[in-house]
Amino acid sequence: MTGAPARRRGRPPGAESADTRDRILAAAREEFSERGYEKTSVRGIAKAAGVDSALVHHYFGTKDQVFEAAVELAFAPALNAEALAEVPFAEVGERLTRFIFGIWENPVTRAPLLAIVRSAVNNEAAAAVFRRLVVSQVMRRVAGRLDLPDAELRAELAAAQLVGCAMLRYVIKVEPLASADVEQIVRRVAPVVQGHLTGP
Amino acid sequence: MTGAPARRRGRPPGAESADTRDRILAAAREEFSERGYEKTSVRGIAKAAGVDSALVHHYFGTKDQVFEAAVELAFAPALNAEALAEVPFAEVGERLTRFIFGIWENPVTRAPLLAIVRSAVNNEAAAAVFRRLVVSQVMRRVAGRLDLPDAELRAELAAAQLVGCAMLRYVIKVEPLASADVEQIVRRVAPVVQGHLTGP
Repeated sequence: MTGAPARRRGRPPGAESADTRDRILAAAREEFSERGYEKTSVRGIAKAAGVDSALVHHYFGTKDQVFEAAVELAFAPALNAEALAEVPFAEVGERLTRFIFGIWENPVTRAPLLAIVRSAVNNEAAAAVFRRLVVSQVMRRVAGRLDLPDAELRAELAAAQLVGCAMLRYVIKVEPLASADVEQIVRRVAPVVQGHLTGP
Repeated sequence: MTGAPARRRGRPPGAESADTRDRILAAAREEFSERGYEKTSVRGIAKAAGVDSALVHHYFGTKDQVFEAAVELAFAPALNAEALAEVPFAEVGERLTRFIFGIWENPVTRAPLLAIVRSAVNNEAAAAVFRRLVVSQVMRRVAGRLDLPDAELRAELAAAQLVGCAMLRYVIKVEPLASADVEQIVRRVAPVVQGHLTGP
């Protein structure tokens, strides 16, 4: 394939392509979070990763699909682990709140999160990725554990508290919330999340 | 002024300029909510309003200032009225929740709100307007009534619940939240807002 990087010697091909894939994803995260969905192009991502555009298409497909792969990383702990299913019912609010603040506080996962928030408010394709990842995957998993007729609405109102906190603290940076100790926020927010999920 | 619209006969000059001002603001709201802050230009607003760019500058100043004037409309009821100061303490959560959902449900004020959300996540100048209007003006007014050392943080966590609901319902349109009856949402959200503001 034209422009594909030459194989370095002495490394198995699998490791090489995993490296390239990771480099493309890292570049994509950077581009999407800096520029937002609309202004990011597959060509720009390829350039930042030092590969040919064709290779980006080869690994991921369309821009939409690169975007989804790039932001999925942030949610991987929630998507892969069945951890949430084992959390005692009374602790699910705190566990979910800690998970969300944890991925926002971590610089590695903050970039894809900024990318998805900045992109989803302005672009329908990115909004669809947001709905699929955050709501269908993370929140419905939580809702699935609630044996209540309005479980999905409950999960979404809990998500609204967490999304709003992330917006004001990490994106718009409103003080004193932006600089407050994360523990102090978790202590106030976790009971609200729990209340939405399991309250009367 | 070149390109300023010719005065129609039989109307007082004051009414004429109020009309023009309103037309510019309506065009600005439309442009900012459709395109976001960065892609909107004073020239584009002037064109949409059918006036010369110089007139937009004359009435409002810079793009920043047009933006602030355009989005301020949505918050006018909260900014002008001293209404909130007279609400009984135990009802402030419900009143605030109804105010926020009211301006989002109203198509006239929804456009400037979409404009501020879409713009503030991607642009620091627009984020500063968001902080000033939503936080300093609306939420600090609420916090000012709470005689508590952490009143501002409380007000911001309450705002986070409301901002998150608006994001998921009106901007990203997550179901079932996007189509749920607004009364049903208010009933669930108002106690949370009240709890943040006045709870233990």
